[in-house]
Amino acid sequence: MRQISAPAKRRLVLLERLLSNCTEQHITSQKIQEATGWSAAVVRRDISLLELHSGASNGYPVEELRECIRSTLNLSLQEQKCCIVGLGRMGQAILGTTELENSNYKMVAGFDSNVNRTEVLKSNFPLHPTTRLEYVIRSEGIEYAILAVEKQEAQSIASRLCECGVKGIVNYTSCMLTVPSTTKVENVSLLTALETLSAQNAEI
Amino acid sequence: MRQISAPAKRRLVLLERLLSNCTEQHITSQKIQEATGWSAAVVRRDISLLELHSGASNGYPVEELRECIRSTLNLSLQEQKCCIVGLGRMGQAILGTTELENSNYKMVAGFDSNVNRTEVLKSNFPLHPTTRLEYVIRSEGIEYAILAVEKQEAQSIASRLCECGVKGIVNYTSCMLTVPSTTKVENVSLLTALETLSAQNAEI
Repeated sequence: MRQISAPAKRRLVLLERLLSNCTEQHITSQKIQEATGWSAAVVRRDISLLELHSGASNGYPVEELRECIRSTLNLSLQEQKCCIVGLGRMGQAILGTTELENSNYKMVAGFDSNVNRTEVLKSNFPLHPTTRLEYVIRSEGIEYAILAVEKQEAQSIASRLCECGVKGIVNYTSCMLTVPSTTKVENVSLLTALETLSAQNAEI
Repeated sequence: MRQISAPAKRRLVLLERLLSNCTEQHITSQKIQEATGWSAAVVRRDISLLELHSGASNGYPVEELRECIRSTLNLSLQEQKCCIVGLGRMGQAILGTTELENSNYKMVAGFDSNVNRTEVLKSNFPLHPTTRLEYVIRSEGIEYAILAVEKQEAQSIASRLCECGVKGIVNYTSCMLTVPSTTKVENVSLLTALETLSAQNAEI
């Protein structure tokens, strides 16, 4: 199989999301261009990297394409365990999210250095003091962590997460994390997102 | 000036963030590689796209490099106005964030279709019913919107935001938005972030 670049993987994840809401049986690269803003040529190139065994004369078969993206990008693996570290305002909002229902990601633990929070907050999974981070992550086999601590704590907690083998961090802090190449980071803080938008709008 | 690709802009935004925490006067591409995981060659190429008028024999001068990124990517423009649409759990967490303090982004309005929320919730800026969206955005000159509504509402609200000339949307919903090319979108929902991490970890 050919190598798929990081930006192509990013687009394919979003394309899969788009297809999940598609009611048609087939979709053309032109239609995808209209819906996404990516050029039809880029769309066709991205899709050519998948091993999709269907012609595209009247468009790609939606269900097959979706399944193919999910399997190629490992999106349909069995359950993947996640934890959340930091239960302030943002962490609490994430505790209550229903977004992961019907996905293969399962939140199994929360952590905060403030024991009042871990004792008082309600959630469907156990909340622990941050001192137990390493123990819980290793014993539960947690692969992904959501980082929502204060900015000053972000790097030290990220390093501890990497130490226990976490494969990916969703970074809700505006701190730029330094991690080993075995751990991937997605930066989703509001400030990072706004600055990225400004940069994309800059006329260069 | 040479064209800067979207991924390069994305890296430069994060590099500026990294430099803001740097206590040294100079930084080498090698050090940046260690901190970010991007190869030193990529780092040098990104920086070569800026108009930085300083040699790099003992590294880049941190303050100058930072200033150069900020001016090239329009990150130091005067105040840019933002609004938030959707004041459920996630929206409320964002209402209370201090992340934008000391940045040039200023939150000036919030919207929700539930009038109980807009009347009861406390914030430092006015909260309006969503029916007033167009009026407030146009009269305030709001350029960026944070979208935190229910998934089902996301596309229709996004279309209304684009109609009134919003230049960028930070999308906290897991809906894949279809917008005209004049509006940029940053997808920061938890599910999108987790799937992107899984895709980056897929061995292809």
